Amino acid sequence: MSVAAQLNQDNTPPETAGEIPGIAWVNGEFQPLSEAKLSLLDWGFVRGDCTYDVASVFKGAFFRLDDHVDRFLSSMAKLRLTMPFDRDGLIEVMTECARRPGLRDAFVKMVCTRGLQPPSFSRNPRDALNQLFVYSVPYTFFMTEEQRARGMHLHVASTPRIPTECIDPTIKNYNRLDFVSGIFEAYDAGADQVVMPDMHGNITEGLGFNVFVIRDGRATSPGTGVLEGVTRKVVLELCEDIGLPARLGTISVEDLLSADEAFLCTTAGGVVGITEVNGRTIANGMPRETTRRLDDLYWAKHEDPAYITPIDYGT
Amino acid sequence: MSVAAQLNQDNTPPETAGEIPGIAWVNGEFQPLSEAKLSLLDWGFVRGDCTYDVASVFKGAFFRLDDHVDRFLSSMAKLRLTMPFDRDGLIEVMTECARRPGLRDAFVKMVCTRGLQPPSFSRNPRDALNQLFVYSVPYTFFMTEEQRARGMHLHVASTPRIPTECIDPTIKNYNRLDFVSGIFEAYDAGADQVVMPDMHGNITEGLGFNVFVIRDGRATSPGTGVLEGVTRKVVLELCEDIGLPARLGTISVEDLLSADEAFLCTTAGGVVGITEVNGRTIANGMPRETTRRLDDLYWAKHEDPAYITPIDYGT
Repeated sequence: MSVAAQLNQDNTPPETAGEIPGIAWVNGEFQPLSEAKLSLLDWGFVRGDCTYDVASVFKGAFFRLDDHVDRFLSSMAKLRLTMPFDRDGLIEVMTECARRPGLRDAFVKMVCTRGLQPPSFSRNPRDALNQLFVYSVPYTFFMTEEQRARGMHLHVASTPRIPTECIDPTIKNYNRLDFVSGIFEAYDAGADQVVMPDMHGNITEGLGFNVFVIRDGRATSPGTGVLEGVTRKVVLELCEDIGLPARLGTISVEDLLSADEAFLCTTAGGVVGITEVNGRTIANGMPRETTRRLDDLYWAKHEDPAYITPIDYGT
Repeated sequence: MSVAAQLNQDNTPPETAGEIPGIAWVNGEFQPLSEAKLSLLDWGFVRGDCTYDVASVFKGAFFRLDDHVDRFLSSMAKLRLTMPFDRDGLIEVMTECARRPGLRDAFVKMVCTRGLQPPSFSRNPRDALNQLFVYSVPYTFFMTEEQRARGMHLHVASTPRIPTECIDPTIKNYNRLDFVSGIFEAYDAGADQVVMPDMHGNITEGLGFNVFVIRDGRATSPGTGVLEGVTRKVVLELCEDIGLPARLGTISVEDLLSADEAFLCTTAGGVVGITEVNGRTIANGMPRETTRRLDDLYWAKHEDPAYITPIDYGT
């Protein structure tokens, strides 16, 4: 049975108009997600001055909850943002966002924005009232079942990712117009998704996923210019478990094109083969053995008590 | 009388929490600005996938309305965004946003976002339902009267502006985490505002303003890597009027530090001297003659029928 079939959900779009079965915590109150909104004046919007993170809930348990919370708190600290909770308080609200609507397979997202300019008219971001939003949506895969089965077809954008010197990519953030033009290009080229090069033409990441290549029995994932993915971290651990040497390094487009295997990894899908890049077939054009093995191990970890934090739904 | 004193307003902060005397047009209806909000799921927020513009209303008339509308429509086209109006319909809504609350000195802002993911679950930005927001806030200066009088003290950020290759800066957009870290630096250094260098260390722009230097009887403003400011355009025209050769070119930090005069220009303040950069005094440390003359001419143009579009308030 496929992982998608195991999920207690119908692949409902998480971000559509209309009624969404998730809920949101905003300004101290839980409310329907459809009512959870941000002021047009929030500096999180008008300056892209915010950070976020997304933890997944699978079969009623958070997966690698601490990693997501750690990264969120670290991103907040880097942006000098504060929230009205300590770590435990945040986890409590996150848990409620999954528990109250009874979502057993969900994404729980948290966003901290700079907030509104204070009544003093100060333009100093230190004076703004930071805003925290926590909300849940049903778990959905980043890709279709067909794409999971045949592997993803990626397009390397002709324009580069925002350099690390300009915006620190280890702060999970919404400044993504670079990705947007890349996504248009990818769709125009008939690809499934885009992967961005850096200013030197080396591979960085996609919108929400990290990339790995396997060559000569060794796995490599871009070490700089990318988000430090939680799934990437799990994959590096799994590589160690199966005795596959893995490291963070540099991947050129040519490395990707000539890989023995290539895959992407994301909280929204696990480990998924990359089988075409810029219209060229990778290896034999189908997800290969190590990719599939890592994906199986990744999902198996969702039952491992060391990796999960069960939610008490009271039923 | 200073320009600020002429304005029929009390320098009310435009972006504070609580009641704001502007109104917003959202989804076909006018509503109080405090209720004008964006879904947390809008791709305009979560991908920074939107564009905006800001026109000013001064003494009951739009200033250079066509320039702002042209730029907004051009930015929308570059991002492949659409709105439910033609140009005249947009101007009608903009006018209503100033007229209804009786704002005679105002900013009228328009934002077009990619919108929500469609029910089809498509991740193709072409399938999203684009959202248009138009709203008004009282006109306020970007700087205090004291700063206008003594000139602005700028800090050149130690980190670069997002390069043109990654995000086209002629599309007025909210991807500004690069500015945010620069603003923190500026405040830490005791400066009023930040100006961003490009990847080669040359001056680009500030958050909402362009920069000019005058050297040896010639004015220069950065020609690439910046927003094509409407006020910059007016200043270039005014330079021609007064016989000051002006051009778009490259400005190094050293050019700025050693300028005979330097100024910034913005819809939210006009032409304002730059008198200190990185703690070093520019020229004699006070706004100089040409800067003050250009500012006077800039505000005088607000009474010139060729530059303005009066609003009929019906009173």
